[in-house]
Amino acid sequence: MTDFSKIDQYLEENLDQSIAELSRLVAQPSVGAQNWGLKECGELVADMLRQRNFEVRIMPTPGAPVVFAERAGRSQNTLLIYNHYDVQPPEPLELWDSPPFEPAIRDGKLYGRGVSDDKGQFVARLFAIDALLQVYGELPCRIKFIIEGEEETSSENLFDFVVQNQELLAAEACLWEFGGVDHREVPMQYLGMRGICYVELSVETASTDAHSGLGGSIFPNAAWRLVWALNSLKGTDEHIRLPGFYDSVRPPSARDIELMKALPEVADEYKTRYGLSHFLKGLTGGVELNLAEVFEPTCTICGLTSGYQGPGSKTVLPARASAKVDFRLVPDQTPEQVLKQLRQHLDQEGFSDIQITYLGGEAPARTDPDDPFVALTVRTAAPIYGQPMQLVPMVGGSGPSYPFIHNLKLPVVTAGAGYPGTLAHAPNENLRLDLYLKHAQHMTRLLQEFGAVNP
Amino acid sequence: MTDFSKIDQYLEENLDQSIAELSRLVAQPSVGAQNWGLKECGELVADMLRQRNFEVRIMPTPGAPVVFAERAGRSQNTLLIYNHYDVQPPEPLELWDSPPFEPAIRDGKLYGRGVSDDKGQFVARLFAIDALLQVYGELPCRIKFIIEGEEETSSENLFDFVVQNQELLAAEACLWEFGGVDHREVPMQYLGMRGICYVELSVETASTDAHSGLGGSIFPNAAWRLVWALNSLKGTDEHIRLPGFYDSVRPPSARDIELMKALPEVADEYKTRYGLSHFLKGLTGGVELNLAEVFEPTCTICGLTSGYQGPGSKTVLPARASAKVDFRLVPDQTPEQVLKQLRQHLDQEGFSDIQITYLGGEAPARTDPDDPFVALTVRTAAPIYGQPMQLVPMVGGSGPSYPFIHNLKLPVVTAGAGYPGTLAHAPNENLRLDLYLKHAQHMTRLLQEFGAVNP
Repeated sequence: MTDFSKIDQYLEENLDQSIAELSRLVAQPSVGAQNWGLKECGELVADMLRQRNFEVRIMPTPGAPVVFAERAGRSQNTLLIYNHYDVQPPEPLELWDSPPFEPAIRDGKLYGRGVSDDKGQFVARLFAIDALLQVYGELPCRIKFIIEGEEETSSENLFDFVVQNQELLAAEACLWEFGGVDHREVPMQYLGMRGICYVELSVETASTDAHSGLGGSIFPNAAWRLVWALNSLKGTDEHIRLPGFYDSVRPPSARDIELMKALPEVADEYKTRYGLSHFLKGLTGGVELNLAEVFEPTCTICGLTSGYQGPGSKTVLPARASAKVDFRLVPDQTPEQVLKQLRQHLDQEGFSDIQITYLGGEAPARTDPDDPFVALTVRTAAPIYGQPMQLVPMVGGSGPSYPFIHNLKLPVVTAGAGYPGTLAHAPNENLRLDLYLKHAQHMTRLLQEFGAVNP
Repeated sequence: MTDFSKIDQYLEENLDQSIAELSRLVAQPSVGAQNWGLKECGELVADMLRQRNFEVRIMPTPGAPVVFAERAGRSQNTLLIYNHYDVQPPEPLELWDSPPFEPAIRDGKLYGRGVSDDKGQFVARLFAIDALLQVYGELPCRIKFIIEGEEETSSENLFDFVVQNQELLAAEACLWEFGGVDHREVPMQYLGMRGICYVELSVETASTDAHSGLGGSIFPNAAWRLVWALNSLKGTDEHIRLPGFYDSVRPPSARDIELMKALPEVADEYKTRYGLSHFLKGLTGGVELNLAEVFEPTCTICGLTSGYQGPGSKTVLPARASAKVDFRLVPDQTPEQVLKQLRQHLDQEGFSDIQITYLGGEAPARTDPDDPFVALTVRTAAPIYGQPMQLVPMVGGSGPSYPFIHNLKLPVVTAGAGYPGTLAHAPNENLRLDLYLKHAQHMTRLLQEFGAVNP
């Protein structure tokens, strides 16, 4: 067993300095949606890596550049670390207690846009690297960073980048950009994400709106066409009617169900937080609710718009209507499949007038809960958090992990400084300094053990 | 036969003066939707009637006051004239070629908000009265005016007012607030209006929106609930599914069909004006299209709103959704019936979570095309327009004529200075001065003959 006392001493003594470095990074806005400061932030990230003697390349994509960095270590084992340097827009500004790009510490937390998502995770990892270099003079393994600038705007170019740079990115394992503890302070290991296929359905039945007294019984109505087309996708039984939609759905395994059973009950919390009177399909809680939440694909109407939407009445017959619809996908569904099924379904049902605009998608991807690297990550958390990480085979959200898992063929693990009150994407985004330190500590153990693994 | 040469001479010589009086009335804004100038305009209207020795009462309602005026004539026959002094909002102001409340004459037309709808019709009728008083020193019949201030905001208080003042309003016939020529310059006699029942359907499934990655497969979704509820009202077959909805529908009579057959073809004009590729139910034109347009009840979605409606994608699961829906009704349907059927239908179909907010309604009402007063109105137009009025048994729009027809038991006829390019409700609303003079001339003939009818 390695003695981590010197490592921990370094981390404790240099925490303020690391937070100061993080604060400088947070002070550089990098809002993808507003095309604000991405280039400058990418360069700052590159500089931070060069200072650690990483070999750094700022690699262009059709969107924001990817920062790639690499440094050799004691062993040839290679860990690929995925982070992103872009952040969510800071608005609404008036709800921040301190300015979003002027990081401030209050009550043991650092506040600012991106302190948690994702700059804090990145700098905590650099901090762990600093400690290892300080104490041992070398890294325990080879480390590669892939740091993109489009995560908050749906990682449009990441898939192609990964596929086109497979050799450069070659590794034995991958550490994902997020992670943290749940409401019980238990560190969680999230091992899979659903995919997504996000579309806009739109229809135009005339060149201009008409008076409803005139055309009501003889003119096509765009709002009706949209309602009928949507209704054809899914009925009140919640069954999604695209042809072949469920064919490639892989049900949860016995191991998945065992892991899901161990998770805390969520029914009461959801009911309180969202003011729900009930769940769908007669679900009331327990593992059935947990399983339905993440192992079933969905078809969600995210938005509807047509005609008059103001107060009171206006007698208009709308020429245009549209809906935002997102499909969450489970292995082995793909957004390409769903797009094809959707067009086929609408045409078959008599809705060839409904236009589909693809607004983005990601395939679902999972890491085997019994992968040795998962075990290593989970185990090395125990001395820091007082317990090993808890395995979560799948979460409901989506992310760009597919090419890492399926093209690079890496196990992808999560670990980080997050907690349920982090307010990522919202005003007063914050980072708990105690969890920041713990994540850095965990990283030192993880890297050290990973370097010692026989490949 | 009366000799109208002196009458016509008066009208021709005093046209400028009458237009000046109309311009003063138009210069007084009276925008109901903006609660702007209604009281002042009502008083101005009352003054104009007092100057003609009408006995005038400004009668309060829960909304804008009704101006009632009465003057006796040579015979005891009484004509009730319905007009309104309120106007549509003038916005968008930038599209007016001259300010909406500074009436201006260009190319034989008077421009301004309300010049046609409805101040021009009212003042043209006063102009006819002036001519008759000037030439004969008395009115040929008793005239009562009922001039409301809420027509543009759906005449909320008019039904009760009429019912509560039946004795005061007693008459033998009623002249409606609008009328005019069609695109062929043929004067049209519109004898019926569909009713309307306008509702907002809304649903709330949670206290707050959720992330679509979280709740997509387990949380109720307001947008889906709304889509399914709307779909239950009407399918692609256009059949409205409320229980008993069609029970009180009276089909068009042989006389109605004969009159509808005589109307000009509308298919090409509608297709061009609205950019339509086709009509509903396989209709292509002819009397079938004309009949479907006005003799069938409708269920029109006028608006849809839920969740995210901006550019691109947002992965939100909406807690709230709503739709504006208008039902156009034909005799003998009523808005009260439809409201009841709608609630019953939604409950039966499992949509008791859908709230119904009633936003206004009017019952349909028709005047017998063979009523003698209709014949008188139609006939007296012939010398002015070169042809008698053409009968239209029903139009698609709605209006508050029900209590006049069913409570006061009056035939209601239309006549006026309107034409297809009048732009009522739009920028550059205008009045053709030649049609203004013709309407005044027609009114002198109508009043003269009406006074001579044996009751």
